[in-house]
Amino acid sequence: MNHFLKEHISEIIHLTDDEFETIQSLFVKRKFRKRQFLIQENQPVKEIYLIEKGFIKSSFIDSTGKEHILQFAAPNWWISDFAAFFKQDLSSVAVDCIEDSEVYAISYENLNHLCSKIPKTEHFFRIKSNFGYVALQQRILSLMSKTAKERYEDFIKQYPGFIDHIPKQLIASYLGVSRETLSRLYS
Amino acid sequence: MNHFLKEHISEIIHLTDDEFETIQSLFVKRKFRKRQFLIQENQPVKEIYLIEKGFIKSSFIDSTGKEHILQFAAPNWWISDFAAFFKQDLSSVAVDCIEDSEVYAISYENLNHLCSKIPKTEHFFRIKSNFGYVALQQRILSLMSKTAKERYEDFIKQYPGFIDHIPKQLIASYLGVSRETLSRLYS
Repeated sequence: MNHFLKEHISEIIHLTDDEFETIQSLFVKRKFRKRQFLIQENQPVKEIYLIEKGFIKSSFIDSTGKEHILQFAAPNWWISDFAAFFKQDLSSVAVDCIEDSEVYAISYENLNHLCSKIPKTEHFFRIKSNFGYVALQQRILSLMSKTAKERYEDFIKQYPGFIDHIPKQLIASYLGVSRETLSRLYS
Repeated sequence: MNHFLKEHISEIIHLTDDEFETIQSLFVKRKFRKRQFLIQENQPVKEIYLIEKGFIKSSFIDSTGKEHILQFAAPNWWISDFAAFFKQDLSSVAVDCIEDSEVYAISYENLNHLCSKIPKTEHFFRIKSNFGYVALQQRILSLMSKTAKERYEDFIKQYPGFIDHIPKQLIASYLGVSRETLSRLYS
């Protein structure tokens, strides 16, 4: 039995061993190397990913070739192009590894099968979706109304472990500032 | 029996008349006048709202007193400070009416009671939460990577009916541009 997956889900819902066996059978474990893509842009998005090890980012390349970071994700976080996954549309963001990573993947079909077979997993995914919404709302308010210094301070307070794993260039992109501005904030 | 509420929920899940009676009993209808607040900042957020009539916005006042619009909402949309509601925390955004509005309100306790009593409503709220996430992701990508002109064009394409209901000053705030810039985009 997989302890990581069981502990992660048991934080929100209680599972019998039989239910967990069903859940486990619907996930696939995958390993990715640093810089490898889980999702490339303009592709069908078939899976969402729960991270067991590593660091992963989702990002968007604009028409001038500049990368904008949507989200960083650490162990116990979920990542994908959720918008494309939920709409079963082509991806508008890419998802790739900042470090070698190990994830549990579940497909759209298996997610819907799971939610209808074990209704309390629907509760788990509703709560997870709500938390994802909360994180994005905070990000929008921060982007719209805060200075670069405030955004940087929020980032290190909200995600204290991230700063050691993520190259400064990527943190600058996440915060929407230049690398030079970020260096001034560090000092 | 309330047709608006039933039709709205039946777009995603099938309900028996008995189930719908239960659902209806957990909602309260409320009427608000233009400029009246459903939620003020720094208050407990006890309810989420489904709009039957009117136009409502959620917004954030920064430390300089400037208003930033998080979301506009039209009939058949849900609005609240979802982040504060899900976390049962104090509000960081305010929600108030652009026009006289009528809404169906459901409390945190009633929402959880409903989801445990009629599990398929959990599916309804998971799907709604996913769509809310999708809208916020699009908004972040737009804020980070698009020009004012592109954001304006996306807005009128995505929400064609909104432009006639919402004062230009508020649309400018939503797009993150000055009123003068918006006027140039109109022409």
